Amino acid sequence: MPTYRAPVDDALFLLNDVFYLDRYGNLPGFADASPDVVEAVLREAAKLAEETLTPLNRVGDLEGCKHNVDGSVTTPNGFKDAFQQVRDGGWIGISAPAEFGGQGLPATLTEIVNEFFSSANMAFSMYPGLTQGAIAALLAHASPELKKKYLPKMVAGEWTGTMNLTEPHCGTDLGLLRTKAVKQADGSYQISGTKIFISAGEHDLADNIIHLVLARIEGAPAGSKGISLFVVPKVMVKDDGSLGNENGVSCGSLEHKMGIHGNSTCVMNYDNATGWLIGEENRGLNAMFVMMNEARLGVGVQGLALSEVAYQNAAIYAKERLQGRSISGVKYKDKPADPIIVHPDVRRNLMTMRAFNEAARALVMWTALKSDVAHRSEDEKERQSADDHMGLLTPVIKGVLTDQGFANAVLAQQIFGGHGYIAEHGMEQFVRDARIAQIYEGANGIQALDLVGRKIGRDGGRALMAFFNEVGAYIKDNSADEAMKPFVTPLGVSLGHLQQASMWFMQNAMAKPDNAGAGSYDYMHLFGLVALGYMWCRIAEAAKAKSGNGAAAYNAKLVTARFFMERMLPETAAHLARIQSGAASLMELPDEAF
Amino acid sequence: MPTYRAPVDDALFLLNDVFYLDRYGNLPGFADASPDVVEAVLREAAKLAEETLTPLNRVGDLEGCKHNVDGSVTTPNGFKDAFQQVRDGGWIGISAPAEFGGQGLPATLTEIVNEFFSSANMAFSMYPGLTQGAIAALLAHASPELKKKYLPKMVAGEWTGTMNLTEPHCGTDLGLLRTKAVKQADGSYQISGTKIFISAGEHDLADNIIHLVLARIEGAPAGSKGISLFVVPKVMVKDDGSLGNENGVSCGSLEHKMGIHGNSTCVMNYDNATGWLIGEENRGLNAMFVMMNEARLGVGVQGLALSEVAYQNAAIYAKERLQGRSISGVKYKDKPADPIIVHPDVRRNLMTMRAFNEAARALVMWTALKSDVAHRSEDEKERQSADDHMGLLTPVIKGVLTDQGFANAVLAQQIFGGHGYIAEHGMEQFVRDARIAQIYEGANGIQALDLVGRKIGRDGGRALMAFFNEVGAYIKDNSADEAMKPFVTPLGVSLGHLQQASMWFMQNAMAKPDNAGAGSYDYMHLFGLVALGYMWCRIAEAAKAKSGNGAAAYNAKLVTARFFMERMLPETAAHLARIQSGAASLMELPDEAF
Repeated sequence: MPTYRAPVDDALFLLNDVFYLDRYGNLPGFADASPDVVEAVLREAAKLAEETLTPLNRVGDLEGCKHNVDGSVTTPNGFKDAFQQVRDGGWIGISAPAEFGGQGLPATLTEIVNEFFSSANMAFSMYPGLTQGAIAALLAHASPELKKKYLPKMVAGEWTGTMNLTEPHCGTDLGLLRTKAVKQADGSYQISGTKIFISAGEHDLADNIIHLVLARIEGAPAGSKGISLFVVPKVMVKDDGSLGNENGVSCGSLEHKMGIHGNSTCVMNYDNATGWLIGEENRGLNAMFVMMNEARLGVGVQGLALSEVAYQNAAIYAKERLQGRSISGVKYKDKPADPIIVHPDVRRNLMTMRAFNEAARALVMWTALKSDVAHRSEDEKERQSADDHMGLLTPVIKGVLTDQGFANAVLAQQIFGGHGYIAEHGMEQFVRDARIAQIYEGANGIQALDLVGRKIGRDGGRALMAFFNEVGAYIKDNSADEAMKPFVTPLGVSLGHLQQASMWFMQNAMAKPDNAGAGSYDYMHLFGLVALGYMWCRIAEAAKAKSGNGAAAYNAKLVTARFFMERMLPETAAHLARIQSGAASLMELPDEAF
Repeated sequence: MPTYRAPVDDALFLLNDVFYLDRYGNLPGFADASPDVVEAVLREAAKLAEETLTPLNRVGDLEGCKHNVDGSVTTPNGFKDAFQQVRDGGWIGISAPAEFGGQGLPATLTEIVNEFFSSANMAFSMYPGLTQGAIAALLAHASPELKKKYLPKMVAGEWTGTMNLTEPHCGTDLGLLRTKAVKQADGSYQISGTKIFISAGEHDLADNIIHLVLARIEGAPAGSKGISLFVVPKVMVKDDGSLGNENGVSCGSLEHKMGIHGNSTCVMNYDNATGWLIGEENRGLNAMFVMMNEARLGVGVQGLALSEVAYQNAAIYAKERLQGRSISGVKYKDKPADPIIVHPDVRRNLMTMRAFNEAARALVMWTALKSDVAHRSEDEKERQSADDHMGLLTPVIKGVLTDQGFANAVLAQQIFGGHGYIAEHGMEQFVRDARIAQIYEGANGIQALDLVGRKIGRDGGRALMAFFNEVGAYIKDNSADEAMKPFVTPLGVSLGHLQQASMWFMQNAMAKPDNAGAGSYDYMHLFGLVALGYMWCRIAEAAKAKSGNGAAAYNAKLVTARFFMERMLPETAAHLARIQSGAASLMELPDEAF
């Protein structure tokens, strides 16, 4: 059975020594986030993840969810108690506003806690995670009345939330959606239609489930400009806040999936269900996009989370499994064979995972801090610049962290050899669970298109230029430092590749948009490598400055940074070459040739 | 439910137009393999694969195998009938010698047929596939008496075969194995021990199962030099060939696996089971390696096979699923949205799979033909050169085709979006099934070590030089041809990378063997890209020469070759950079830092 230890120390090092959390004291909520409070919160979250959620991970995979004859859904044994603990600890609302019962702490802390919970039990952590997403959408767009009615219970975890976008014939292209909303005399709407792939759509963890549903109001324009967002509770909520009758919402069936068996993935039927409009009519996609940005960051975190827990278990196995002898001479003479960690190729896999995990954690934290600034700063320019960063980096984090998270789960499984293919060891579950993160919340191909088609050119390329300026200035400032050269020199080369690729799109994709689509996926990964490379420079700089206590850990950071520069960053050249080859050979064949 | 159409025309094009099967008429068995016979065999195999094996693929995944209280194993519903058809068609023995009831046709045909069967149903095709592997080992090393006793029934498919190597504490490092053999007065041995991960170890498809078992004879040296190979039948065979008593062999349990559920993966217990020595005492590993070379080629074919069937289903879906509009303007005006094949990123994935599949099929065929020459030619030099090729290319084919086969199954699943994650569509089964091919028959890291540590330096680098000479001469011969330049010019660059990498090992890995281990995996993939690139040149050359009938298909070959050169081959530069970075950053951290 896999084990897990939450990387609390690494998170604290990043928060304190790399990103200087203490410099954000002017933001609301950050003053409360003193170093000792932050550490206490993270250690408490680690305990819950390690002791309660980890042991339930395989239980959830084996048992899955059950759809009962009365339409209810039973979650795996133990999930109910665990959810009670999450609720009692106030974990759903640690970053929610105090006025709705939250603790108002930085959203950055929520992302770190979510990494721990997802490592421990991805399927389980989606129940609170989706609730957080629904809270974010209601906070941003709902009327004061709706907020007052739903948010306190959701923040407290008494009720959970969902997102209802996909229909059988449309996922990516929401303009095709058919779910119908008919306005009633009392201002509410009757919602009818079928939604699929609804995570946590029905379960036994909470008294009510608050569905956010995209639907088309009768008479609204066709396509994506006629879509509105509604809140549709499973059980009607009376004016005094108590629960009333069942609404016209039911779970039609559960999907049989490759993984995340512990999460209920539902076909949801809306049959003249009563709902209330969130935000303006026909502006539902905009409202949903707010929720999706947060959710996409959260899915990127899932990629990191699975990579981390898979790495930890692979490292333990590599130190225990005795097989063969080191090619440079016997290392453990007292044993019948050396542990496989002596083999360079096993090391290569372990270092690959680690070099990703530690930089990806930094990238998430950097971006989560920007999200806090974007939501909480009183300085408009600061907010705008932070928002630019969020918009630009969100598709990169979602796409790259989930692709690499899956790849690393596969690498970790490989270290187990045949034992990795056997269910009992749990490594194959990580692979199956990690796979969904590349698909949902916008398949990664869509993230790449979002990046190239929308984000890099927005506002005259303002966000992209700011990113180039920051990384470029950092390289310049540090290039005279001999100790930083092994890190900033290769980063400079790869930043150059990213700039050339961006320029290539400007010159070649206006007239021929297929050139943008053909290079978008490589561009997303090229961008991700540069961003991770920048994180490694920042980490190395901080690690260099530390000594004494924990010197071994800081030295490990420097070695891992070098590994990243030598082994992973050079891939940017291949990405650039593919981008510059353009769309011709992709698009030449007629459709029927496939 | 996935569908499958065996690529018979592509196989015939490769056999006839790229590799000139008609030039091999001097080899035994090849004269019988006239173009019409070959085509008839392949069309018949295609029919069996498409109509019988494909519909059973999901059945096998859902039902799995059952371990009954009496120790017997029941295969999924329909497998027994299907196996009867394989037996009746003589498919196991199409390339086996006529003296044992085979048809003596080229082994190359067997590889092609195995691709079809594995695409249709990988878990099922392992039952006949492992039997073919056991036949190969007996043919190469067993005494005439043992051959006479076992081979005819195995070639006929009345009995099946297995390979028993792995034990709980040893897989890669067989020197640690503990299964014991005690010589008896009658010349037989009593075998005792436990083997794990034994594919097809017990089942209900045949009257007897012939286990090939590695064990250590009492008093033999420790380590890999004290291992012998034995034949151990499940049911004793009397001198008249009829079945006698049960032997001391039993299936202790079935493994719960990530995929290939239709194949029984057994823990096998040998309890004073009677066995007979194959080949010489303490030379068991050598005998097993013969079988493993064939088996590794076969596993490479599984990688190709899953990539092919996953590609076919993704292509169908991409032409049917309507979602969004082409960024270069609406393509299907009469539909509510364009099929997703219009999107460049979807095309990129489809072309990636296809560019791999068609070249990988060529690479398998090229190497299978060498295997026929190595086994059948009367010219010693020809045999040696073909054997050199086999030894060099086998780890490349096993490692690269299974890594890319898995990656392509994932790509194909991705094209289905959320639907790819749902079991009913069958795409996630391809991913789970394909995954094992990277692990068994020597995990791919071991293939890379075999290539770098043994194969490239063997006999003074004779095999490697022959490969360089052939590819180099081809590039030279074709570089003046304008139409071939887009193919041979990039191949020349990548061949240069491979040569530089080989040189780097010569200069840097003698004194520091870790440098070889650290670069081995990249070297294997660099080698694979050059080999596939060479295949694309050969295919393009043949396609250029064709016109008229099927011109569209030949044009598609040229476009796909260009895609490969532009999009896939440039990766060789990144592999070279990683190899040249050496072992330092991998090996620097102490083991306890992980």
